[in-house]
Amino acid sequence: MAKALIAYYSKSGNTRVMAEEIAASLKQQKIEVDLKQAEQVKVNELVNYDILIFGSPTYYGSMAFQIKKILDESVALHGQLDGKIGAAFSSAANIAGGNETTILDILNAFLIHGMVIMGDPKGDHYGPVSINAPDARTISECKRLAKRIADLAKKLFG
Amino acid sequence: MAKALIAYYSKSGNTRVMAEEIAASLKQQKIEVDLKQAEQVKVNELVNYDILIFGSPTYYGSMAFQIKKILDESVALHGQLDGKIGAAFSSAANIAGGNETTILDILNAFLIHGMVIMGDPKGDHYGPVSINAPDARTISECKRLAKRIADLAKKLFG
Amino acid sequence: MAKALIAYYSKSGNTRVMAEEIAASLKQQKIEVDLKQAEQVKVNELVNYDILIFGSPTYYGSMAFQIKKILDESVALHGQLDGKIGAAFSSAANIAGGNETTILDILNAFLIHGMVIMGDPKGDHYGPVSINAPDARTISECKRLAKRIADLAKKLFG
Amino acid sequence: MAKALIAYYSKSGNTRVMAEEIAASLKQQKIEVDLKQAEQVKVNELVNYDILIFGSPTYYGSMAFQIKKILDESVALHGQLDGKIGAAFSSAANIAGGNETTILDILNAFLIHGMVIMGDPKGDHYGPVSINAPDARTISECKRLAKRIADLAKKLFG
Repeated sequence: MAKALIAYYSKSGNTRVMAEEIAASLKQQKIEVDLKQAEQVKVNELVNYDILIFGSPTYYGSMAFQIKKILDESVALHGQLDGKIGAAFSSAANIAGGNETTILDILNAFLIHGMVIMGDPKGDHYGPVSINAPDARTISECKRLAKRIADLAKKLFG
Repeated sequence: MAKALIAYYSKSGNTRVMAEEIAASLKQQKIEVDLKQAEQVKVNELVNYDILIFGSPTYYGSMAFQIKKILDESVALHGQLDGKIGAAFSSAANIAGGNETTILDILNAFLIHGMVIMGDPKGDHYGPVSINAPDARTISECKRLAKRIADLAKKLFG
Repeated sequence: MAKALIAYYSKSGNTRVMAEEIAASLKQQKIEVDLKQAEQVKVNELVNYDILIFGSPTYYGSMAFQIKKILDESVALHGQLDGKIGAAFSSAANIAGGNETTILDILNAFLIHGMVIMGDPKGDHYGPVSINAPDARTISECKRLAKRIADLAKKLFG
Repeated sequence: MAKALIAYYSKSGNTRVMAEEIAASLKQQKIEVDLKQAEQVKVNELVNYDILIFGSPTYYGSMAFQIKKILDESVALHGQLDGKIGAAFSSAANIAGGNETTILDILNAFLIHGMVIMGDPKGDHYGPVSINAPDARTISECKRLAKRIADLAKKLFG
């Protein structure tokens, strides 16, 4: 049974709603899930998971510094995340306001760790995005992400 | 009086509507404007303009190859676009479907030419985006871009 | 036995050398490989492969339009590349001259197709890069990519 | 006389050397310069400058969280940086290891503030990059950036 960490930073609560939705959907797919706020994440724990999913508001076209801090500190275990699955999601205030670049920045960090990433041919291709409070569209994207990640984990980790 | 080229590729017509709106707004700002489809652009002409504004649909997270072809061929005049103003716009089928990366790819190419780029603190920060047919929001973004670019051109070129 | 297509555009020959090196290394890993110049690729054939690896020179921070043309035309089979493995490589004239953004643009397109991507915790994290003619460092990166992609293909496709 | 803030984070000292070089070159161009470590920057002060130049090591493909923290907090004065000049530089451990994406992330944040950015048709197009300790090539890139930014400031701010 694969294990996932969902780590998020949320001020307005929008990113948290998405995190909870992804967590619930992953559990339905028989993935064990830990859901943590960025400040609660101990970097050493990252090695304990098969799947890392990071969520952040869109702040100036990239992730909140609280999420970046985890990635910066993860250099201490560089090489040990090789082959794990990564995914990302973001909430933003505007269409075209930096949400794609936020998600891609998190995914790029995962690639630098040697991790495995997957896009989605439908909807939010790089990862789920919410414009302001998550609506039905966003919730549906979160569910799709969970389903696709769980399927990939089954192929990679059995 | 500064001179602008708006070059665009459009299949559905959505990008063309944006191009025409930006052209009309630039003219109101006393900028001379040539509006051309990508296929009509002769690369040598790029040096004749103070402002280059390229528009493209969002195709797989970047600009249509017809626009990229112009940029590839512009290597013949590399160095001669140094200091000109650049801007970009895009129409897309989905929120978070690659529209930001499309615009940023065009802007990056302009940076490689040594050109000057400006963002917008309101709305579509990197450049105007349309989700499907341009609506009132998109038209307003196009007008804002034209106004801001014209103001910058007055400062830079007198 | 997994099947890979390596499609590349090369004018100076630098990208071609990288393509051939990746092809040879994949074959050693028991992957069946077709190596094609961009102009030879028939878009319909993409569905026949488990692995798509695209290589391009760095032209204005992104791929050559000949490679982008393949991606634009691949919209005809959108959805059918879901779950395949993607990778990218690039040759460039300068350090920091756009090689990373070129590779990431290809990878983003693969993500939009729903494909699976993997980074590398050592060396060229997003994909192999050559600065001018491929040297020993670049050749080694190409071999690493082939080995890692082959391992991932075994996990995903058996 | 235009005023510039160079804000940087540096652990190894490589980014600091670049910051000092840019500062010295800007002063030779008659630009007033404040040089500050990220931790010393008070966000309210950003409005006092005409030019903001941020430098960071390349950490997982983006800026150090200490630099991102400044950008996140700058939301308090959103709109007030409109029209200022922005630039960025980075030191990295590897070619193609994320230095371009680090610089572009800082530039994107400046675009979201409505700031003005300029590329360079020679050398490091998006901003100066050092691979490990700054060498003669990097120092030359830092001098070029200072000269180009000073010229742009004279046009924009007189």
